[in-house]
Amino acid sequence: MTGQERSEEKSECVSLSPMREAVPAPPECERVCVCGTGDLGRSLGLRLLQAGYGVVFGSRRPHSSSSLIPHGAQVLGHAAAAQSAHLIFIAVQREHYDFLVPLANQLKGKVLVDLSNNLRKNQYPEANAEYLQSLVPGAEVVKGFNTLSAWSLQNGPSDANRQVYICGESVEAKQAVMAVATKLGFSALDRGFLSVARELEDFPLQLFPQWRLPLYIATGLSAAFFFYLLIRDIIYAYVTQGKDISFRIIVSLANKVLATGPRCVCFCVCYQLFKVGVWVCSRQVCPIVSLIMLSLCYLPGVLASFLQLYRGTKYRRFPDWLDRWMLCRKQLGLLALGFAFLHVLYTLIIPIRYYGRFKATEHTVSVIRENRTTEFDTTTAWRGDSYLSLGILGFSLYVLLGITSLPSVSNVLSWREFSFIQSKLGHLTLLLCTAHTYLYGWNKFLSSSTYKWYTPLGYMLCLVLPSVVLLLKLLLITPCVDRTITRIRQGWERRADQRNPKNSQPLIP
Amino acid sequence: MTGQERSEEKSECVSLSPMREAVPAPPECERVCVCGTGDLGRSLGLRLLQAGYGVVFGSRRPHSSSSLIPHGAQVLGHAAAAQSAHLIFIAVQREHYDFLVPLANQLKGKVLVDLSNNLRKNQYPEANAEYLQSLVPGAEVVKGFNTLSAWSLQNGPSDANRQVYICGESVEAKQAVMAVATKLGFSALDRGFLSVARELEDFPLQLFPQWRLPLYIATGLSAAFFFYLLIRDIIYAYVTQGKDISFRIIVSLANKVLATGPRCVCFCVCYQLFKVGVWVCSRQVCPIVSLIMLSLCYLPGVLASFLQLYRGTKYRRFPDWLDRWMLCRKQLGLLALGFAFLHVLYTLIIPIRYYGRFKATEHTVSVIRENRTTEFDTTTAWRGDSYLSLGILGFSLYVLLGITSLPSVSNVLSWREFSFIQSKLGHLTLLLCTAHTYLYGWNKFLSSSTYKWYTPLGYMLCLVLPSVVLLLKLLLITPCVDRTITRIRQGWERRADQRNPKNSQPLIP
Amino acid sequence: MTGQERSEEKSECVSLSPMREAVPAPPECERVCVCGTGDLGRSLGLRLLQAGYGVVFGSRRPHSSSSLIPHGAQVLGHAAAAQSAHLIFIAVQREHYDFLVPLANQLKGKVLVDLSNNLRKNQYPEANAEYLQSLVPGAEVVKGFNTLSAWSLQNGPSDANRQVYICGESVEAKQAVMAVATKLGFSALDRGFLSVARELEDFPLQLFPQWRLPLYIATGLSAAFFFYLLIRDIIYAYVTQGKDISFRIIVSLANKVLATGPRCVCFCVCYQLFKVGVWVCSRQVCPIVSLIMLSLCYLPGVLASFLQLYRGTKYRRFPDWLDRWMLCRKQLGLLALGFAFLHVLYTLIIPIRYYGRFKATEHTVSVIRENRTTEFDTTTAWRGDSYLSLGILGFSLYVLLGITSLPSVSNVLSWREFSFIQSKLGHLTLLLCTAHTYLYGWNKFLSSSTYKWYTPLGYMLCLVLPSVVLLLKLLLITPCVDRTITRIRQGWERRADQRNPKNSQPLIP
Repeated sequence: MTGQERSEEKSECVSLSPMREAVPAPPECERVCVCGTGDLGRSLGLRLLQAGYGVVFGSRRPHSSSSLIPHGAQVLGHAAAAQSAHLIFIAVQREHYDFLVPLANQLKGKVLVDLSNNLRKNQYPEANAEYLQSLVPGAEVVKGFNTLSAWSLQNGPSDANRQVYICGESVEAKQAVMAVATKLGFSALDRGFLSVARELEDFPLQLFPQWRLPLYIATGLSAAFFFYLLIRDIIYAYVTQGKDISFRIIVSLANKVLATGPRCVCFCVCYQLFKVGVWVCSRQVCPIVSLIMLSLCYLPGVLASFLQLYRGTKYRRFPDWLDRWMLCRKQLGLLALGFAFLHVLYTLIIPIRYYGRFKATEHTVSVIRENRTTEFDTTTAWRGDSYLSLGILGFSLYVLLGITSLPSVSNVLSWREFSFIQSKLGHLTLLLCTAHTYLYGWNKFLSSSTYKWYTPLGYMLCLVLPSVVLLLKLLLITPCVDRTITRIRQGWERRADQRNPKNSQPLIP
Repeated sequence: MTGQERSEEKSECVSLSPMREAVPAPPECERVCVCGTGDLGRSLGLRLLQAGYGVVFGSRRPHSSSSLIPHGAQVLGHAAAAQSAHLIFIAVQREHYDFLVPLANQLKGKVLVDLSNNLRKNQYPEANAEYLQSLVPGAEVVKGFNTLSAWSLQNGPSDANRQVYICGESVEAKQAVMAVATKLGFSALDRGFLSVARELEDFPLQLFPQWRLPLYIATGLSAAFFFYLLIRDIIYAYVTQGKDISFRIIVSLANKVLATGPRCVCFCVCYQLFKVGVWVCSRQVCPIVSLIMLSLCYLPGVLASFLQLYRGTKYRRFPDWLDRWMLCRKQLGLLALGFAFLHVLYTLIIPIRYYGRFKATEHTVSVIRENRTTEFDTTTAWRGDSYLSLGILGFSLYVLLGITSLPSVSNVLSWREFSFIQSKLGHLTLLLCTAHTYLYGWNKFLSSSTYKWYTPLGYMLCLVLPSVVLLLKLLLITPCVDRTITRIRQGWERRADQRNPKNSQPLIP
Repeated sequence: MTGQERSEEKSECVSLSPMREAVPAPPECERVCVCGTGDLGRSLGLRLLQAGYGVVFGSRRPHSSSSLIPHGAQVLGHAAAAQSAHLIFIAVQREHYDFLVPLANQLKGKVLVDLSNNLRKNQYPEANAEYLQSLVPGAEVVKGFNTLSAWSLQNGPSDANRQVYICGESVEAKQAVMAVATKLGFSALDRGFLSVARELEDFPLQLFPQWRLPLYIATGLSAAFFFYLLIRDIIYAYVTQGKDISFRIIVSLANKVLATGPRCVCFCVCYQLFKVGVWVCSRQVCPIVSLIMLSLCYLPGVLASFLQLYRGTKYRRFPDWLDRWMLCRKQLGLLALGFAFLHVLYTLIIPIRYYGRFKATEHTVSVIRENRTTEFDTTTAWRGDSYLSLGILGFSLYVLLGITSLPSVSNVLSWREFSFIQSKLGHLTLLLCTAHTYLYGWNKFLSSSTYKWYTPLGYMLCLVLPSVVLLLKLLLITPCVDRTITRIRQGWERRADQRNPKNSQPLIP
């Protein structure tokens, strides 16, 4: 807060000396005005009082609302309130801005902070702040604090959004607002001129914009593989052998038909198939999708490196699709982690399932009845143990990656540490998980019996992408390629003479 | 930091030029004084030196303590030290404040920062800072930095509390202290006038104030259900059938009696019952308490909506109990997550338990010996699979909720995203967990045999509350009700004319 | 930002009025210069533009690079660019600093911010910033922003490192740079004078410095116990009984020898032993190392207390090794948590393993064939259940400790809460885990058969350290000792007269 401002406060506090008794604030206090006694207005006022400001509320009905405002503040009519302070927070809905029009003259040169938000995007032709500026041309309008909820304002920034974005034309006005924000315990970030206001007003309305694409990918993949497995495992069994699962289906179908008539047969079929399918698939879909998305999370990085290698320079922008892809890598990775988590849980409860217990009993019974001798198969044992071990290690690294991508953790990491974990450990995780799946498949890849209807098993499909990524990465870390990449990353350019502005797009639009 | 202060430093640095050689700081440096060479004082001094301040320590015994202070600082007597700087940190126990009384004159107009803390609440009639102010009326006392430990001061704010609360009467003094805090890497929050000092001094002494209530609830619920299950499962078996568990109890009792005489029979009974009970209950108590607490975490929100609906306005304060309840929702949810975590672990190790393994073997053996044929029961299988699946999904969402309630994660969420996760996903979690429990119960609800002594099973009791919450929530999201709620939330009031200050309490006390 | 600076901007913006049209910034804008159009330079420029600064790029080839820079900025030659602003960011490699030498005169009194980093530590005799200062003696060089990557600069501080360290000789220059940093949304921390620059330049190159020691310890312990168990379990079985595991080894060896000739016998032996060993050990090594490291994490605290008790004062520095040990307690604890996590996963998948399933079947079959009656062993059951329960509770507390050590969580805890969790709950965790291991061992401690070759089992060895720590802690919390410790911590000193500077080293070097 600059000295000039403080002197100003003093002067105005002197001018207001008659009403100073009413306000429990020493003469040095800065006085601010809050127009509107809604939740937001009151919470803001309370916080301002706590931070040692003198607060004057402006209200349509000063008398009826005088009982609502926090203790220590005053309520006046809008006009009187606006007059009593240099900094005025507008905490009313955009619909009621018109009350400011008559005050346009006395608001000249004052700082109006527009806190308003809309209910949906593009509700109005122009941003609320710009509309406000057009109503009160003389005032210096600053957009800000609108990303905060009344709740977070009241309980302080500790466990709500701590960052406050502001924008406006006048630097002095923004400085003053930023000073207030800092005193309230928020860290204010100046986003530029009033034209940014629309963006700031859309921010509270946005719902995980950068999660959209990864979520679509995850849903698509899950659905695709669900039906692939459903058809492959269930329908196939239903059509060809028809003994094991379809038996029950037939039976229940018969009952259904007898009971309800043939009308709902197709429904029954679907229902039965679904019941049969859910468990089988839910257990196989999770790991498959998880592995694919993890490789999708490391593919763009590899592609980018090859693109730089091909272009021989880093000073040209990546194509948009690659840019967008690289910006949602974190989300892809976290979703993959979620699927891996589900996979682990689904795997761990296998022995608790009735099916598992039943199979175990059946096996033992058959051993006894057929009087077989139980022979310990070393290969199976070591194969199982090793793919379980690989899975466990992979998952643990996975969790580690997830933890380090928490904002608070990545904040305390230096850039080199962050990239070491996210790149080196990340590729190691991918390697472990891929090996885990390969070992799980073991020699099934060779036996033709696994290729029912010439379709590979689900986990064979999901191995394609990670294998490609790992191969490309392997190419990249071969000494000769690595050296070139490093030089390019340090700004070296191949055939710099051929580069001319025409064929090179700007890096940043 | 205002220009006027900086000029001040310069002037004083000039006045102190003879001793400038002693201090490795350029003439621009600001000189501060730290009274007291304890841990806190020394750590603060070291940090001040790192931030480029010139530091002068005040000590009772300058010579003996000159060896303790960080390199680059000076030690003088309290009087000389206090004279050499405008900003003075008081890092001594309140008991020794009296050394300041003789310095009252030369401290006039200087800024005294009171760092002291007490050993317990209400140790003294007034706050240390107020006591200090009374000792040195001329000085401008600022309370601050007391929430930091010497350790966090020394290692910087990165992985200790970053927020510094200060309070005091003079705005200039607070400005100066806030500037220092910012340079030390802390973010200072001005909490108002010196009357807040007591609150700041109590802060380091508080121990999870907002966790108390939820913890009490959790403990109470656990104890209640533990004994309910203990009585219901163990005593009942002991009294009525008396074959399965009590058999062992009788046996061991007999031994005990023979061994030690009847004196300790009752003890043995309790001990046996306890041994028997612990496992049974520990497995059932966790899920029950978890589900109840999760619904307790969403009940207040629903109640609040209905209250607003009934009152037809949001401009009236909720009753205190509801306010307090709503403020500890987060804690309730996290505790519930903890219990769910325990429940998952307890469930997953079932197959590892000797009891589980024994039962499995026994079952197989009986199958063989009685020559039964093993028949696969589809219904049981699908029921089991579906309630396990529901449980897994519910737990995963649960974990997601827990992660998003981490401060660093909720900080980067917009308000809408946060409420979407905590409200929509939260209710979905509740729904999944409730369905999980219903499916677990399945048809036991109907068979009378489950109601031993006319008492329902534990998980039936715990289903009441969540069902109620879900029903109420269902009511709230019906279009017509939802529309009204939304309008009320946007500030619309039914029969606004009837509202008068008398029957409406202020929202914020 | 002080008023004097702002006036400065104004004046310069006026002087630059002819080119103001080119820059979409109002006359109030502050103009800064960025030398170098690399990634870092461009990202910084973009961010400066967003924050409402006018940006002028300095480039070797203004025309070719004019297409690369963000929209709204200008590119000029280095000289012209440097002239147009008071604050100049040097975003070029140290190798190209020489272009500044001819500009030395017009740079006099300007603020040069050195963003450069090196590829490895001690690449050059002096820090880049000091080298820059030596090239341009008249300018005020400030080191800063070098800990940020171009990526984090472009995407803002939200999910990258938010803290910016700066250092330099002139306070005014640092003030100006800190103001810019704040407007860009970073929180700047003044680390002192230019001599700190080297440290700042090494920061981005550091790779988990405080994790080194704990990682070495973990690796050492794991290796040691791995081979201890390998020898003890495998070799021993191989040598003495030679029936169960070594049988398979012999067989496979024979095949190998026949197949490949005796050359690779030793390799085969190792390979077989390794295969056999991995699983056995991986399951035992994790818990052992985890428990030992957890106790290593609480040992130094106990030692420190005893040292203070012995010395009778807290005003003497701990020996270096203890200091270093205490500073890496957090890392020790987190690594221990990682091992515990692995241990839990390894335990939970036991029933899924082929080996586990095989053993179960074998057991049942033997029961049937030998017509044994299955008798439920109460003791085994309760013992198993209790050590599983203890393990579960211990692990849950462990996870709780891990969560509270997340920066964002520990930030919102008061000092007392933090120490309560980390100390009280920490020791409780240690107690639970130790009891868990003791119960697991049960009466094996007595039977001599467990001491093959007079060596104890792995988990017996790992019980020594935690037991010692717990005993010492028990001693410390006995009332009489506790009272003395508390008094010492509050600054009381035994025989204060004997203390003289000679035998007391300074607390902080």
